[in-house]
Amino acid sequence: MTSPDRRARALEVLREQRIETPSWGYGNSGTRFKVFAQPGVPRTPEEKIDDAATVHRFTGVAPLVSLHIPWDRVEDFAALAEHARAQGIELGAINANTFQDDDYRLGSVCHPDPAVRRKATDHLLECVDIMDATGSRDLKLWFADGTNYPGQDSIRDRQDRLAEVLAEVYARLTGDQRLLLEYKFFEPAVYTTDVPDWGTSFAHCLALGPQAQVVLDTGHHAPGTNIEFIVATLLRHGRLGAFDFNSRFYADDDLMAGAADPFQLFRIMHELVQAEAVAGVPATGSSTGQPISFFLDQCHNIEPKVAAMIRSVTNIQEATAKALLVDTDALTAAQRSGDVLGAYAVLKDAYDTDVRPLLGELREGLGLHPDPSAAYAASGYFEQVSRDRVGGEQAGWGA
Amino acid sequence: MTSPDRRARALEVLREQRIETPSWGYGNSGTRFKVFAQPGVPRTPEEKIDDAATVHRFTGVAPLVSLHIPWDRVEDFAALAEHARAQGIELGAINANTFQDDDYRLGSVCHPDPAVRRKATDHLLECVDIMDATGSRDLKLWFADGTNYPGQDSIRDRQDRLAEVLAEVYARLTGDQRLLLEYKFFEPAVYTTDVPDWGTSFAHCLALGPQAQVVLDTGHHAPGTNIEFIVATLLRHGRLGAFDFNSRFYADDDLMAGAADPFQLFRIMHELVQAEAVAGVPATGSSTGQPISFFLDQCHNIEPKVAAMIRSVTNIQEATAKALLVDTDALTAAQRSGDVLGAYAVLKDAYDTDVRPLLGELREGLGLHPDPSAAYAASGYFEQVSRDRVGGEQAGWGA
Amino acid sequence: MTSPDRRARALEVLREQRIETPSWGYGNSGTRFKVFAQPGVPRTPEEKIDDAATVHRFTGVAPLVSLHIPWDRVEDFAALAEHARAQGIELGAINANTFQDDDYRLGSVCHPDPAVRRKATDHLLECVDIMDATGSRDLKLWFADGTNYPGQDSIRDRQDRLAEVLAEVYARLTGDQRLLLEYKFFEPAVYTTDVPDWGTSFAHCLALGPQAQVVLDTGHHAPGTNIEFIVATLLRHGRLGAFDFNSRFYADDDLMAGAADPFQLFRIMHELVQAEAVAGVPATGSSTGQPISFFLDQCHNIEPKVAAMIRSVTNIQEATAKALLVDTDALTAAQRSGDVLGAYAVLKDAYDTDVRPLLGELREGLGLHPDPSAAYAASGYFEQVSRDRVGGEQAGWGA
Amino acid sequence: MTSPDRRARALEVLREQRIETPSWGYGNSGTRFKVFAQPGVPRTPEEKIDDAATVHRFTGVAPLVSLHIPWDRVEDFAALAEHARAQGIELGAINANTFQDDDYRLGSVCHPDPAVRRKATDHLLECVDIMDATGSRDLKLWFADGTNYPGQDSIRDRQDRLAEVLAEVYARLTGDQRLLLEYKFFEPAVYTTDVPDWGTSFAHCLALGPQAQVVLDTGHHAPGTNIEFIVATLLRHGRLGAFDFNSRFYADDDLMAGAADPFQLFRIMHELVQAEAVAGVPATGSSTGQPISFFLDQCHNIEPKVAAMIRSVTNIQEATAKALLVDTDALTAAQRSGDVLGAYAVLKDAYDTDVRPLLGELREGLGLHPDPSAAYAASGYFEQVSRDRVGGEQAGWGA
Repeated sequence: MTSPDRRARALEVLREQRIETPSWGYGNSGTRFKVFAQPGVPRTPEEKIDDAATVHRFTGVAPLVSLHIPWDRVEDFAALAEHARAQGIELGAINANTFQDDDYRLGSVCHPDPAVRRKATDHLLECVDIMDATGSRDLKLWFADGTNYPGQDSIRDRQDRLAEVLAEVYARLTGDQRLLLEYKFFEPAVYTTDVPDWGTSFAHCLALGPQAQVVLDTGHHAPGTNIEFIVATLLRHGRLGAFDFNSRFYADDDLMAGAADPFQLFRIMHELVQAEAVAGVPATGSSTGQPISFFLDQCHNIEPKVAAMIRSVTNIQEATAKALLVDTDALTAAQRSGDVLGAYAVLKDAYDTDVRPLLGELREGLGLHPDPSAAYAASGYFEQVSRDRVGGEQAGWGA
Repeated sequence: MTSPDRRARALEVLREQRIETPSWGYGNSGTRFKVFAQPGVPRTPEEKIDDAATVHRFTGVAPLVSLHIPWDRVEDFAALAEHARAQGIELGAINANTFQDDDYRLGSVCHPDPAVRRKATDHLLECVDIMDATGSRDLKLWFADGTNYPGQDSIRDRQDRLAEVLAEVYARLTGDQRLLLEYKFFEPAVYTTDVPDWGTSFAHCLALGPQAQVVLDTGHHAPGTNIEFIVATLLRHGRLGAFDFNSRFYADDDLMAGAADPFQLFRIMHELVQAEAVAGVPATGSSTGQPISFFLDQCHNIEPKVAAMIRSVTNIQEATAKALLVDTDALTAAQRSGDVLGAYAVLKDAYDTDVRPLLGELREGLGLHPDPSAAYAASGYFEQVSRDRVGGEQAGWGA
Repeated sequence: MTSPDRRARALEVLREQRIETPSWGYGNSGTRFKVFAQPGVPRTPEEKIDDAATVHRFTGVAPLVSLHIPWDRVEDFAALAEHARAQGIELGAINANTFQDDDYRLGSVCHPDPAVRRKATDHLLECVDIMDATGSRDLKLWFADGTNYPGQDSIRDRQDRLAEVLAEVYARLTGDQRLLLEYKFFEPAVYTTDVPDWGTSFAHCLALGPQAQVVLDTGHHAPGTNIEFIVATLLRHGRLGAFDFNSRFYADDDLMAGAADPFQLFRIMHELVQAEAVAGVPATGSSTGQPISFFLDQCHNIEPKVAAMIRSVTNIQEATAKALLVDTDALTAAQRSGDVLGAYAVLKDAYDTDVRPLLGELREGLGLHPDPSAAYAASGYFEQVSRDRVGGEQAGWGA
Repeated sequence: MTSPDRRARALEVLREQRIETPSWGYGNSGTRFKVFAQPGVPRTPEEKIDDAATVHRFTGVAPLVSLHIPWDRVEDFAALAEHARAQGIELGAINANTFQDDDYRLGSVCHPDPAVRRKATDHLLECVDIMDATGSRDLKLWFADGTNYPGQDSIRDRQDRLAEVLAEVYARLTGDQRLLLEYKFFEPAVYTTDVPDWGTSFAHCLALGPQAQVVLDTGHHAPGTNIEFIVATLLRHGRLGAFDFNSRFYADDDLMAGAADPFQLFRIMHELVQAEAVAGVPATGSSTGQPISFFLDQCHNIEPKVAAMIRSVTNIQEATAKALLVDTDALTAAQRSGDVLGAYAVLKDAYDTDVRPLLGELREGLGLHPDPSAAYAASGYFEQVSRDRVGGEQAGWGA
């Protein structure tokens, strides 16, 4: 039985939870084999923002949208921010792109040619300029850099080049701006990836300074990796800056968060709840003293995009709610006494709870329909944009 | 020390080895993140054939080129075959494509909608028509079909649909035409793949009849899979129809054959040599009584394509040569007596041998330069086609 | 909302569900690093049966216990069966052991030495004798056979030897006895395993005859393998004979069923429910026309064993109950219409349901406490056997 | 063609290479399923040392043997060191064991109970005492600590406990003694491992001080992990203290070094050669300013142990020799100019070279037979110890 106090506290935290959706998740995407176009897909950054605002309108907890440069480059970022505010949301993190120019065939910030590194660095600096214009706090860096063949380049030289570029970009940050460095096990490079694991990202962040933190993308690990261990470890060192949520069965599948292994998502959230780092407050010991960002970073290659984003948000909410219901006193007591099955049972009791009524109550308290997916489906939004967004070029990755 | 007899026999077999290169390996390719264009890339099926003929001219063992429909669709396939012959090579297998039409978003031959299945089936039947025109023996089928989310479709119904389509296509074959069914662990679908493993392909082939055999793509397995075991097992059941050679570190990386794990390629070749199934003769017990096809199926996303294909051919030759040098009598004696280290040593002795002199001799016997990569680099072919192939649209996957 | 009809039907099926626990799961077990002894562990086959009966007494759905020979060898198996019946349960499958004799260092049924194969075969035949004595229907065969080094033995010869032994054993079966052939990806052999995947087991079963079927152990697959696909495929071919349930994070961890990925267990159960093969009735098209056996096969290296077994049984029940609540009409409609998110939502709705009240009702209907774990903990059984079972030698794997 | 200078330099480095063999590699070992006893296995630490000395006598590059406490605990370690010297070798690293006492069921240095942590810490301190007695430089710490079930213990608390114990042990070191912290992906714990990856070990070493470095065991990574990347990264940070060499196909298989993927071992050696860190000299920037230790850590479950150790040593030598033959000028030139295939070709040319003649020359220069495996086989040592070592208890892991 969930205690009334715990339930009330859960509602309080869930009310403060903030999930940031990615502009590129509203555009077309696909695999190397095919990008399937979908009806109603946005053609402009503004239309992506409209979709993001729709997700917020039905969920109440997604008031931020991340931009990707150059896909979302506009003349006037202040005007774009204004457009977002008019729709009820804010612009969030700026994501850099150093992988879609022919110059980047062999890398960007790690490229053997200094001219290419310069070009990539300038792009990163431009992103900080954009952050100044939009008021964004987070510069999120994921590098596609790596090699495909043994011997292709010097692993170690590439690390040195990376460190040098990062230092220049870090020095450009002002105020409470953060540099968030993402790691990824493989893809698109397949032999080496220049930031393949949390350790590499962590070591670079240490070298940079307190405003550098690690981004954990839940799809970027080797098979069998215990992700919640990494969460706990980065929290312990104060260097967990952000999540990129999504789910996967095999590679970086970029499925909806919580779709592949909801128990894993719950365990991740449990680590955050233990560290009181879920909702809008900085985790104890954070090197930046700023809250962790909860980004979604996923593609919807075959399913409708706004509906998939809504489902992802509610999946995260469900995992969070279950984690908030864990009877932590009972858990700690069982752990301390070496009661393996008792401790597992406490966790599983919370996980087995059907939290949909609790979340329905949360939404009604926010003036929303208790079932965002159903309400969205009934709203006619998809049909409307499918009719309206005809002509022009649909947004996509531009691969 | 390699015995002179074994060396002579190796040369004999290597002289008969036939490797078939893929037309699409000469075009641009990439990842979902970016396709980098390269200079000198062919713009037409004829130019792809010219590149394939170049690989054969320098290696002497690549006299066949596989086509991919619709990427290589032409008005007059007989004329295309004639063009190939004029360049010194032949057209090989026909590869079907049922993954690049918007109708195939949820699958092709396994799609829930019978109309889509009909469309896909008609494409497969068209491919047999083309085989009739080109004189190709092999219909190679790889299906991108699968699902991304649990529940998305009925796993079992999809198998039934697949079986029905395959039966219709199989019935259309004539003479010694073969249906070769490829399996793949994941990608582009990520939750289920409709032919994910050799067992599924094998079971369908059994149901179809003797002219149906399995294609083993060396990049299409789960991590840790022992591929040579599958080779041995399929040979034992007479159902190994073809290889798609390439190499990989993590997923279906489509690197040059032998690049990632040359010892594994050697072990695969060892199984073939044991079964006397390397060069142009049918493996004992083959359901078709036809030789195994040695296809290359790889991409060259960042490296020059013709040079990469030549290197792949020579990598396969090296693995084959080493396998032919295994002292099989000593190996069998060690195995039978339970001498674990002795048996391993026999295999490793062959593997440790530098077979480049032997292959140089082979090539000189064929009137070729002993080092195909060096000879190609010196030939000026790349520079020539880079100058000539300007304008038009470079060949690619069209994703 | 779950319809009352579906709920009633679920209760009906759950009442008929039968889970068979393994005698060796009550003994000590461990890793190659250490076997930790636990209090109260049985010292005799009879005491293991007492523990199995205890699991049944609290769950009501575990009326069978599997034996492992020689660990459970007794003088008088009829008397052992009588002991079981007196405790309220029955003897189930006979599990053979051909891996713990020094003769089996290089294999048993696949060993290069015919004398070792003879010894192993005789053990298997003895197991059928025991089946005759106990009335067991299932001969469950898992072979530790394989090799550790490339070249160590001929992969193909080993398959031939395996086929020959299996044929002799199959010929010995009488009546409705079944030969159930288990596969395992790796361990204890690490280079090759002689029955590494479902395809290999399936091919051997086909060669043997209709009374041979495949055992799917949920911990015996490569990382990323879609197990429910294999379930669906084996059902389609009528060759799914049994499950060995357990769970795993990385290798064959043998954790409690449902502990590592409860969503996966639910998806497996969903395939069985779709095929109406959950409870005591044969799956349509089964080659034997007999129901699938639901074995547990797990170790409890650090947790108390009877309590862990009870939890495993209830975890399986929960997954089954959720699968029975799937709104199959809505699911099929969504699948047929290509509604990816709708179909996923139907599955997830069932999974999100808290089925503990339903299972409580089931148990009360059987005259049991609604919470078996709590009732067992309160029963004092563990404390009692911990006091009683002192002296003698605790049961274990004897490694 | 290998340049004479490069060949001469390779010989020079190979002459200085030092490989340290593990005492436990001479004893019986196995899997959780079975430990197969072998003839001639040592019964005492002295006999293990005799075997290690035999490996050195035939290879010339294995003059050190690692001890494992308590398996090698003796009354008088100075006398043991004297015994070793009399055989021509030295005692090397001290390996602690905190996993084979019943108290360690839920961990040792991370155990929730402070009394268990105290016991484990005292054992570690005793190991430093032994180091003082033997003159060993390296304290090698691998912890079996971890959890099997979600919730079983607090991931983060366990890190804090670990840090506290390590700090106490580190403070006990004197002179140039090093604390070497090993990481391992999984096993024996399967849900979490308390030091699962290089990042965790690295972060603890940073916190401890310069005399703490990371141990990289080549078998302790997730599938698909690029190990040479980790080597390069740890070298860059000065924290690569030692290797545990062995090889694996799937898990921590502990096969002979180089047996499973010789190309990978070559690539690892290439990173060391690039950093001039192969033979007896400290890598530039090492936090300790001491050379990297090259440990073997493997089991020989089915193969004879001394012969397997000799083969492992020569496998490492072959990989090292090939790495030393890489034309680094050509490699760097190709890398800098973005010549992907050219750079790969340089590496592969070295790898394809048959270095057995070079190593034969090296050994003859040391007054040894050019083929250590053949010379050992001919020596009669195995037959002699098989006759002599009868009675008593064979050494083993004591699991």
